[in-house]
Amino acid sequence: MSNKTRAVVALGGNALEDKSLPPTAESQLKVTERTARRLAALSAAGYELALVHGNGPQVGRILLASETAADVTPPMPFDVCSAMSQGYIGYQLQQQMRQALEDAGRQIPVVTVLTQVEVDGDDPAFRRPTKPIGPFYTELQAAQLSRERGWTMKEDAGRGWRRVVASPRPQRIVELETIRRLWDSTITVACGGGGIPVMRTREGELEGVSAVIDKDLAAECLAEGTDADVLLILTEVENVCLHYGTPEQQALHAVTPDELDGYAAQGHFAEGSMLPKVQAAVRFARSRPGRRAIITSLDRAVEAMAGQTGTVVQ
Amino acid sequence: MSNKTRAVVALGGNALEDKSLPPTAESQLKVTERTARRLAALSAAGYELALVHGNGPQVGRILLASETAADVTPPMPFDVCSAMSQGYIGYQLQQQMRQALEDAGRQIPVVTVLTQVEVDGDDPAFRRPTKPIGPFYTELQAAQLSRERGWTMKEDAGRGWRRVVASPRPQRIVELETIRRLWDSTITVACGGGGIPVMRTREGELEGVSAVIDKDLAAECLAEGTDADVLLILTEVENVCLHYGTPEQQALHAVTPDELDGYAAQGHFAEGSMLPKVQAAVRFARSRPGRRAIITSLDRAVEAMAGQTGTVVQ
Repeated sequence: MSNKTRAVVALGGNALEDKSLPPTAESQLKVTERTARRLAALSAAGYELALVHGNGPQVGRILLASETAADVTPPMPFDVCSAMSQGYIGYQLQQQMRQALEDAGRQIPVVTVLTQVEVDGDDPAFRRPTKPIGPFYTELQAAQLSRERGWTMKEDAGRGWRRVVASPRPQRIVELETIRRLWDSTITVACGGGGIPVMRTREGELEGVSAVIDKDLAAECLAEGTDADVLLILTEVENVCLHYGTPEQQALHAVTPDELDGYAAQGHFAEGSMLPKVQAAVRFARSRPGRRAIITSLDRAVEAMAGQTGTVVQ
Repeated sequence: MSNKTRAVVALGGNALEDKSLPPTAESQLKVTERTARRLAALSAAGYELALVHGNGPQVGRILLASETAADVTPPMPFDVCSAMSQGYIGYQLQQQMRQALEDAGRQIPVVTVLTQVEVDGDDPAFRRPTKPIGPFYTELQAAQLSRERGWTMKEDAGRGWRRVVASPRPQRIVELETIRRLWDSTITVACGGGGIPVMRTREGELEGVSAVIDKDLAAECLAEGTDADVLLILTEVENVCLHYGTPEQQALHAVTPDELDGYAAQGHFAEGSMLPKVQAAVRFARSRPGRRAIITSLDRAVEAMAGQTGTVVQ
């Protein structure tokens, strides 16, 4: 094992999508190319990387296509849609990342390892599903889907009814051993979209489950499991802020896990947005002395790794 | 590197689908479970394996859903559909294979490595696309798609018009180094559906292309690249036959590459079916002395590896 700093990088939605462009695979490829160049700069700065990406918009569109076409071809279960999104995003990311490294004079293999992440069937999240996925339906359709397919449906802010699934905590990365083995030689894209959620049946077998694992928490799980030095969470903002979006907004620089946890308890961070990033950062920084979590923007990743910006949790 | 016999296994369509069942992900999972049990028996017999699977029906349905839903979400290019099919099939295969090995008392990691396979832009196949993909269209729609999206459309046996793409030869497996590195410790699912086809642009960058690479030829390319001992092509029949389906039908047992090539030249093998398997087998057996290709059924794989049945090309 080399003595280079090892970082698990969690990529936010803006690393894959530019909301000003149409949501096509072609425009995603362009954004991915830009992202890959920034990540190649991180690699060139001497860090060893593994990459975790989100999949919210992509899996949403896969599910939408699948349900829209249900009359002509059987719709896919959610775990399979999740696996397909890892294929889609992982392909573009590994292709662009390899190219960006090559352009920077670095010959490093980049591969995507399809990743299953085990969740606990007793996770309280399963008792109150919160994560809306897929298309909007009318109240009548919603009642029918609930009856016929056992889905939990919720009214979504006056826009119609949607299926909601649970967002349980990641417990174990099934393919961890392989990702560890590849680390020294290869940049691995893993746990895409938080991983394909699987659960143990009573017979002890792994089975896909309709759920969404938060990708920052999955990245944290991967960072612990691979014994990484840094969990680098990249998002749209350079720093985590208190009183975000108000005149009192205040950027956080170096913070301890306890301090950050305290701010979270005060309600400073938006659920489903900054909160899971903060939770992942706190958890990783606490997991072992010396471990460091950084939250910053994709554009400032190199400077943040060098301690010059970002919110550093240690 | 161990001195165990190393086999690249190419799985035919029947390893993933049972045509008597509806083409759902759930029924595919059941067939995959059966397939995984047979492959686990091969592993238990002492062989080191890498797995290549087809994706024809699956990528067809992904494309169909994508095009059917084109009014509500942008349709996916074919290379992305191919990547998504690797996600779908690879996920189920790695999950079931790991379980089957565990049930057989073997703890072997099984992972899917998303695989790009480079093809040559000058491949003559691009001048006459032959592979029909996706939905059927009317003549009017076909003309419009040809104009608007540059697709090559062909009338398909009175059933309507379909897009056709080229089936170029595989030249190079982009992720080969990683698959090689994993071989000794891990069963890798790679080159699914023949691999995601990519081509070098004039700037030297890899770019996805709408094409279908034959999965048996891709498996052959992988077997050469990983220096495997055996290319094991599993299909529905126990042996390659001369005069197949006629009263003169004659099963082939041990044959030399030259003999088999001669039979192919006489037109004994169906294009798009047994012919590419035979071509892959001949090519591998010729690639280096001592290399062996076997064509047999999934059910007889263990016996065929032991030399007791199947068509053995050496």
